[in-house]
Amino acid sequence: MEDFKPTERTTVKRLPKRGNYERETINQILDEGFICHVGFVVDGSPVVIPTGYGRLGDQLYIHGSAASRMLKTLREGIGVCVTVTLIDALVLARSSFHHSMNYRSVVIFGNARIVEDEDEKMKALQTFTDHIMIGRWEEARIPNQKELRATMVLSLSLNEASAKIRTGPPVDDEEDYEIPVWAGELPLHLATGEAVPDSRLRDGIEIPQYVQNYRRPQATDER
Amino acid sequence: MEDFKPTERTTVKRLPKRGNYERETINQILDEGFICHVGFVVDGSPVVIPTGYGRLGDQLYIHGSAASRMLKTLREGIGVCVTVTLIDALVLARSSFHHSMNYRSVVIFGNARIVEDEDEKMKALQTFTDHIMIGRWEEARIPNQKELRATMVLSLSLNEASAKIRTGPPVDDEEDYEIPVWAGELPLHLATGEAVPDSRLRDGIEIPQYVQNYRRPQATDER
Repeated sequence: MEDFKPTERTTVKRLPKRGNYERETINQILDEGFICHVGFVVDGSPVVIPTGYGRLGDQLYIHGSAASRMLKTLREGIGVCVTVTLIDALVLARSSFHHSMNYRSVVIFGNARIVEDEDEKMKALQTFTDHIMIGRWEEARIPNQKELRATMVLSLSLNEASAKIRTGPPVDDEEDYEIPVWAGELPLHLATGEAVPDSRLRDGIEIPQYVQNYRRPQATDER
Repeated sequence: MEDFKPTERTTVKRLPKRGNYERETINQILDEGFICHVGFVVDGSPVVIPTGYGRLGDQLYIHGSAASRMLKTLREGIGVCVTVTLIDALVLARSSFHHSMNYRSVVIFGNARIVEDEDEKMKALQTFTDHIMIGRWEEARIPNQKELRATMVLSLSLNEASAKIRTGPPVDDEEDYEIPVWAGELPLHLATGEAVPDSRLRDGIEIPQYVQNYRRPQATDER
């Protein structure tokens, strides 16, 4: 698995030691996340839209209605920036100035390609569903021809990407360690609540295990 | 409190019934979130960078090192798009096609202004800290002159903004309600783990209540 070669625009300039170009690290962040922020330019103005995504190998898929303005704009192959951000902790220092967050973010640059081939499109939609919830594709009704036509799928190759990562405790100025104020990390994570069955659910259908035990894949998971 | 007037670029075009232009709703989303994705254009290419923010009235503040490329670019007054996204639930339908998420997002367009006035700058930094953790500004050492100079603060007026919101259960095609598969919502929220004291913490300092009981302000909180 080849790592990313930093380009002018993916090189982490502020705090370069937080920059990371390893493909495995970047893939893991993309796999733990499931919402990306898609940036593109319309009439010279930047637009940033949140959307779901799925990763398969070195392709990132996004999808939506064939009527979506964002997708219709991006299918023209204009430049796009896709950013995924995971927040791991609030970092509380003794000085206001040194407060920070622990985070892992990935920034991808490229040009999206429309997926026209029906087999690839179906595979992309499965990727999308699998990315958000493993087990669901096998249970739900898969898209029919009409739904496939109403869905636009775009693919972005992971060629130009970088991660930026902060971990660990606060770093205070030496003289501030004397200040008698609590300092440390407050970890944050995405948690699930109790599943809410649809009011029209048929009788006798239990909540599936993949819903009950839902969690995002973690860097520490065995591969 | 005047609501937002939809403009060409803030009008929610896909699924317009999800669009919302109420200032109170938009403020609440901005107050519950604390990470925004900032979009701007560099050499014709879109760039999307995650960062923290704080809201005070109709001003959104972002800040960072005076050496930050993003801030140096934005202080020129170029167009910026700031997006805040909260994910509330995965929405599982009987058909793959009708899977969705419940979410609340805000998109703001404008041009950032640099905050030069020292009093406003200090106030903005307090806003920033208060936004992320109420109670912290009073305890941590506030910025000194050197730190103030090393920090750049930008302000974005909330003039042109809209929200997009999905709530509620899945909506399946009528004939799919017969399919014997579980359907419903899996709520998601940001949760805290156990606070991790810094290894150099002075003896006898307890974890503050505002850390122990940390939560984001909710729409249902009393005002």
